[in-house]
Amino acid sequence: MPKRPSRDIILDRGLDLLSQVGLNGVTLGVLAAETGMSKSGLFAHFKSKIEIERALLRRMANVAQATVVSPAMKLDGLDRLRAVVTNWLGWTTRAGLSGGCPIAAALFELDDQDSEIRDEVMAMESRWREILAQLAQDAIARGELRADLDVDQFVWEICGIYLSHHASSRFLKDAASDSRAQIAFQALIQRATAPSAKTSS
Amino acid sequence: MPKRPSRDIILDRGLDLLSQVGLNGVTLGVLAAETGMSKSGLFAHFKSKIEIERALLRRMANVAQATVVSPAMKLDGLDRLRAVVTNWLGWTTRAGLSGGCPIAAALFELDDQDSEIRDEVMAMESRWREILAQLAQDAIARGELRADLDVDQFVWEICGIYLSHHASSRFLKDAASDSRAQIAFQALIQRATAPSAKTSS
Repeated sequence: MPKRPSRDIILDRGLDLLSQVGLNGVTLGVLAAETGMSKSGLFAHFKSKIEIERALLRRMANVAQATVVSPAMKLDGLDRLRAVVTNWLGWTTRAGLSGGCPIAAALFELDDQDSEIRDEVMAMESRWREILAQLAQDAIARGELRADLDVDQFVWEICGIYLSHHASSRFLKDAASDSRAQIAFQALIQRATAPSAKTSS
Repeated sequence: MPKRPSRDIILDRGLDLLSQVGLNGVTLGVLAAETGMSKSGLFAHFKSKIEIERALLRRMANVAQATVVSPAMKLDGLDRLRAVVTNWLGWTTRAGLSGGCPIAAALFELDDQDSEIRDEVMAMESRWREILAQLAQDAIARGELRADLDVDQFVWEICGIYLSHHASSRFLKDAASDSRAQIAFQALIQRATAPSAKTSS
């Protein structure tokens, strides 16, 4: 057995820690202690703190992809969108992580910082919203969502449902969080399928 | 001029700091440095870290009351609810704070902690949701919102709009954040005024 934990073990432990304490909480000291390494031992695997953070976020993206997106790929159009959103809600618990969504936390933790890691989170959040927008576009192309849907607004509101669910399930520990999120999402879908006011007048 | 900053000056500086870095970021060391005091000087005003945190949250509640709620009190019913929600969106900037909403940040920062300050935030968030629920109840009593409205669901969705606005305005710096929030809120009000499916069938 190797004395020094492999890069994979550091990233697994680091991602769990990240889900609990957020990016600012994952200091080199804490991560070293958690993995039983020295800081210089960590630097044998990663050249800098930002390199560790980037690697943790990439690991998170892979886990999220496997938990949220991949299981929905057997479906199409609106069904796929519904499955992705449902898988997204509370995904960290289903992925075996102890804490909440690192990106959701970072949106509130890093908003007033100006840093490389903020830029990284910005790029990831933007890519995620583009994926949601593409799923909506696919459903529009199949005639399942209305052609004049404001896709950016639609995605913006899905993100609100996600954040409210995160706050109510993880912070308030409200048992109704899942059903509240589904009711809100269902109402959003209904608005996105209803004929527009212009069409009906 | 007194050499030692008054309690008020500590709290004003501390609240601005809190809005930028969150509860975990307001350490005694940072707050002492920001106010030009020693840690023991801080303890001449506050007996413990939790006492400072509680005082900062009370200060925040007073500022939020003056910025968000008080200006809406000249209105009634649904108009008052609309004004409170509109004043709530981005309230910290209008209150002259440099950062975002400390409670919104705490919902994601403290979710996996078990601490006195988490309990304090929980109590404040619960009270705030009760205020929003009461405003909705008043609008129902006036016949402005429908009698069978699920008020808890309604408040849950308003909180989602608030959180999505916070993320999009402060983190993503999306110039459309205000209008997106208003479109989402208007659609929510519309659902809350429409006759229920049961009534129309």
